[in-house]
Amino acid sequence: MTRVFDVSLPISPDLAAFPGNPGPRIRPTQRVRDGAATNLSEVQLGSHTGTHVDAPAHLFEAGAGAHALPLDVLIGAAVVADAGAVETLIRPADLMALDLARGTSRLLLRTRNSSFWQEPSRAYPTDYVALAPEAATWLVERGVRLVGTDALSIEPFGASGRPTHRTLLEAGVVIVEGLDLQAIAPGRYTLVCLPLRLMGADGSPARVVLLDEGGAIA
Amino acid sequence: MTRVFDVSLPISPDLAAFPGNPGPRIRPTQRVRDGAATNLSEVQLGSHTGTHVDAPAHLFEAGAGAHALPLDVLIGAAVVADAGAVETLIRPADLMALDLARGTSRLLLRTRNSSFWQEPSRAYPTDYVALAPEAATWLVERGVRLVGTDALSIEPFGASGRPTHRTLLEAGVVIVEGLDLQAIAPGRYTLVCLPLRLMGADGSPARVVLLDEGGAIA
Repeated sequence: MTRVFDVSLPISPDLAAFPGNPGPRIRPTQRVRDGAATNLSEVQLGSHTGTHVDAPAHLFEAGAGAHALPLDVLIGAAVVADAGAVETLIRPADLMALDLARGTSRLLLRTRNSSFWQEPSRAYPTDYVALAPEAATWLVERGVRLVGTDALSIEPFGASGRPTHRTLLEAGVVIVEGLDLQAIAPGRYTLVCLPLRLMGADGSPARVVLLDEGGAIA
Repeated sequence: MTRVFDVSLPISPDLAAFPGNPGPRIRPTQRVRDGAATNLSEVQLGSHTGTHVDAPAHLFEAGAGAHALPLDVLIGAAVVADAGAVETLIRPADLMALDLARGTSRLLLRTRNSSFWQEPSRAYPTDYVALAPEAATWLVERGVRLVGTDALSIEPFGASGRPTHRTLLEAGVVIVEGLDLQAIAPGRYTLVCLPLRLMGADGSPARVVLLDEGGAIA
């Protein structure tokens, strides 16, 4: 039996929001207990709320929207790598130390950030572990096509010009942020990362799961 | 190479909304062209907007929310069956005529509804093809655990007491609505249906894809 691991953050008004991003709201619009035929709600979310993908349109005026992120990159073999020893900045040397197999095209970085999700508060810290711009370049040069982080942003907080994002998005690398990797042992998995099909949007909340590598789906 | 078919509706303000459901809005909250570091947006969606799942909480006060729908039902082998000859109501005889293999646990019904998505208008018709309550009972008895439709609702329009939904949700069957199956040949696939992890919500927009059956994911 193939196991399915949910690495998505629960979306509720309690979800931690990155500074500048609106928190989620789920507002009932009709209720059975008030005589309606069904319960219906309206959901309000930042495009970068919780577990989400960044689209090139996050930085670039004419960049592709979330709807256009390639499904063959969002789905496939992935490595969850342990960068738990890194204090704040993942540098090329840290990536080299991961000893990634050649051809690794999807990389999820498990860091001390994941422990924040054990007892999350609504205010997100600014001293999370992030990816240095030179490390982003290193990943691009290695042919990585998707990179995931257990922080709400992959960029060092407030970095001017957002060089890590710029490097990745310019190269067409999909960025997945806000993963909860607490319970995930480092190793190989099948990743399925499905954002909403939001036309032209700069990003989108996503549901992200990991399956046992090579496990049959039935 | 495993093919991935996107059977999700594009989410934009033009998306057809089922009567009583708010249409989607994607509103920029900050723009690079106005001097901001990044583009960010706020997304407003009905919980049953576009391609979506229904949770037991759609009908039942203490019903499970969208977050609790079982991933092992949302992911797995599925049959896309052609019910293109049905005028408005799929009855048990129509399901019998599909000649489903024993053990079919996920069934997507492709009907004339899918042609609406060729040139969608914002007003959704009320004469769509729906599932009769007796047909819902038939599916439950056969052990089907997920049923998908290419209409925005699986219920005959305005049916008092929502007997089709009631039968399915009471039995723990996952309902997927608003699939675009226009381009999908009837047959066997691997379904991946991932709703957002919306805590306690009565439903959730979802991204839904079909993969070639048994195709390797790499």
